[in-house]
Amino acid sequence: MSSINLQLLLTGNELVSGDVIDTNSAYIAKQIKGLGIDVSRRVTISDNLNTLVSEIQHMSKLADILIINGGLGPTTDDLTSEALAIAAESTLEENPEAIKHLTLWAEKRELVLDQANLKQAILPKKSKIIHNRTGSAVGIHLNINDCDIYCTPGVPSELKIMLNEEIIPLLKSQLPEQELAHTTRFQTFGIGESKLQMLINESFPDLSNEIEIGYRANSPTLELKLTSYTKAAYETKKQWLPKFHNLLNDHILGEIEGDNVSLPSYVYQLLLKNKLTITTAESCTGGLIASQITELAGSSQVFEAGFVTYSNEMKTEMLGVPQTTLNTFGAVSKDTVLAMAKGALAKSHADIAVAVSGIAGPTGGTPEKPTGTVWIAWGDSSNMNSQHFIVKGERNNFQRTVAARCLDLVRRFLIKSSHQPCYVK
Amino acid sequence: MSSINLQLLLTGNELVSGDVIDTNSAYIAKQIKGLGIDVSRRVTISDNLNTLVSEIQHMSKLADILIINGGLGPTTDDLTSEALAIAAESTLEENPEAIKHLTLWAEKRELVLDQANLKQAILPKKSKIIHNRTGSAVGIHLNINDCDIYCTPGVPSELKIMLNEEIIPLLKSQLPEQELAHTTRFQTFGIGESKLQMLINESFPDLSNEIEIGYRANSPTLELKLTSYTKAAYETKKQWLPKFHNLLNDHILGEIEGDNVSLPSYVYQLLLKNKLTITTAESCTGGLIASQITELAGSSQVFEAGFVTYSNEMKTEMLGVPQTTLNTFGAVSKDTVLAMAKGALAKSHADIAVAVSGIAGPTGGTPEKPTGTVWIAWGDSSNMNSQHFIVKGERNNFQRTVAARCLDLVRRFLIKSSHQPCYVK
Repeated sequence: MSSINLQLLLTGNELVSGDVIDTNSAYIAKQIKGLGIDVSRRVTISDNLNTLVSEIQHMSKLADILIINGGLGPTTDDLTSEALAIAAESTLEENPEAIKHLTLWAEKRELVLDQANLKQAILPKKSKIIHNRTGSAVGIHLNINDCDIYCTPGVPSELKIMLNEEIIPLLKSQLPEQELAHTTRFQTFGIGESKLQMLINESFPDLSNEIEIGYRANSPTLELKLTSYTKAAYETKKQWLPKFHNLLNDHILGEIEGDNVSLPSYVYQLLLKNKLTITTAESCTGGLIASQITELAGSSQVFEAGFVTYSNEMKTEMLGVPQTTLNTFGAVSKDTVLAMAKGALAKSHADIAVAVSGIAGPTGGTPEKPTGTVWIAWGDSSNMNSQHFIVKGERNNFQRTVAARCLDLVRRFLIKSSHQPCYVK
Repeated sequence: MSSINLQLLLTGNELVSGDVIDTNSAYIAKQIKGLGIDVSRRVTISDNLNTLVSEIQHMSKLADILIINGGLGPTTDDLTSEALAIAAESTLEENPEAIKHLTLWAEKRELVLDQANLKQAILPKKSKIIHNRTGSAVGIHLNINDCDIYCTPGVPSELKIMLNEEIIPLLKSQLPEQELAHTTRFQTFGIGESKLQMLINESFPDLSNEIEIGYRANSPTLELKLTSYTKAAYETKKQWLPKFHNLLNDHILGEIEGDNVSLPSYVYQLLLKNKLTITTAESCTGGLIASQITELAGSSQVFEAGFVTYSNEMKTEMLGVPQTTLNTFGAVSKDTVLAMAKGALAKSHADIAVAVSGIAGPTGGTPEKPTGTVWIAWGDSSNMNSQHFIVKGERNNFQRTVAARCLDLVRRFLIKSSHQPCYVK
């Protein structure tokens, strides 16, 4: 990997005080990692000029690249530009490029620039501006002590755009080509981390060691990362990708470079494509599956009705589950979830149903049906399936895991998968 | 406030790489703030012995107090103890107190201590252990360069207990009494931040400036913080608290020192106390209210059934909303939500119902009923109420805000509040 020393400096009272959780630094680290560069150190300080100056001086001596985040705004506690000038033993001046940017920014918004805005164009001598497509604050690029410094806005949305559109390409153009890293990410569901690891080891004993394999639990999905760090390794990886596709098969929700694929959106897309509607009959998940589906814009095209039947009485009244079924087999049983699913189909006129009943705990378990026992039924009127699981974990985690499995079973039904999921025991 | 320089050092590859979002440092900062001490600087580094040593040496020269988080575990990348010994120019030795702790820890779990476990008892000479009630790793307390160093475990649950039960009392006992800060927190709902700020300014023009007022949006609730920094100010604050209670009144969900009070749990407690059951009839929130209630252990005592009626047809079939009502007034109307609530009461035999229908967007709005329009009905069979709102925001945020208002309206109904909520427009 790379031997470049890249460090982060974050400024902001709200970060040091804990009033705001810092997510920017994780974002920066991940994007930079895409270039094959690891962040080696990160410092977070409050908005104080002296502290900022001495930190910049110290870090610019340690690092090859320093990314500063925050302190570019128009108010008096935005001190990055002033601190940079002092640290560089230089002076501040009005930057014509920054003035041009601010003027355009104000015109678009029909605003008149005031003194506070114009402060954002007062930059250290010799600094170059970094374009900000969405905000008023330009970024600053300056070299101090042989360290390349990039100053970025603290507003997460502005940071993301500036980083991806301006700084990453700039860094990329300066790196020797063989140092470029490339990551392929598979979002999977239905296979646990250790099982996936074993499967890959056993199936690909000859896997090229140029391909770095990483796993990331991205609850409820599991991300598999394949990273190459040289151009040759990238070519090797391309040849291996079809084999990974074959191996993982229906466990794959998507192969992506960035965003997540969620189970509800995958199911929604499948339903939409096949012009099908779904209904939910939920006991232990208490409406969670319905709410995950209806969180998606456009869900009314695939979802008309959901039933939350918590008590036995309501399973009978709302879904027509026979009282004899409940009395003979209990609320958490194959017969009950099948009757719930059939009842939901009949009452909602939907094409597909998923029904679930289980013991979320912490109380309610018995020796025969311990806490975590769950029955799920899914399918359509001509093909209704059911399965039994034991799901360990706290109540909230139990509900989320069960909802994810329900959606995954529907997904596998819709893609007519012949592969068995191997959910974590 | 205090002039004590307190700094944080966090270690962990997963923190620097961004694979884990750091929430520990915010937690530590807040708890320390309770003593009147601000964190002045925070450094995050990967698990590397040399880096760790030089960072400890540097920071111990800058700070009066240094809290180190992480690196106390049994594996080879846990390096805090070793780095401390080198930084202190001391050596490592087996600490008898730590051995005793590990032995007890293992006995309780019926485990046999292995070499990796025992590594956790090898500490720098002269260091004192800090008790860890829940984990195997003891904390380390040591003075280097006149800086008081406290090493804490990276596991959040262990950190929290060690910080609150051991380190905070230790720090407290060392601070001069007049420096002790005390914070009272009110969790509120139903009043926006700027409105609350104005209300306090207008109602209490003579409020003692010894009391520091802070606001924290803790979505969906709003936290009001009253902090005193001296013993005299604490006595003054005690006299003001009843006035704040009177002013905020039914907006208060709870007055707490630490944990959050959530709307669903507040409503659940009220229902339980009054031996009442609730049902939900949800259109635009799609099951979210039901899932928030059923997330709570014991919710089956207050909740038997919920209805997710997304389409007009299902509002009629499942809840008996007359087709003429839907045709005349539309799905998002006073008459429809009242009919939904009454239908849900009748079908579920619950005592209380809440019904909601709205336009979550991004499409579906009209000039008369723009995106964000929502009607809510709530009450019991003898007293059913309804109200209309416009809730701005993205779809997901809309659903969460609407669910929170539904629960708040039920809460106000149950406490027979005569105070009007003033939700953010």
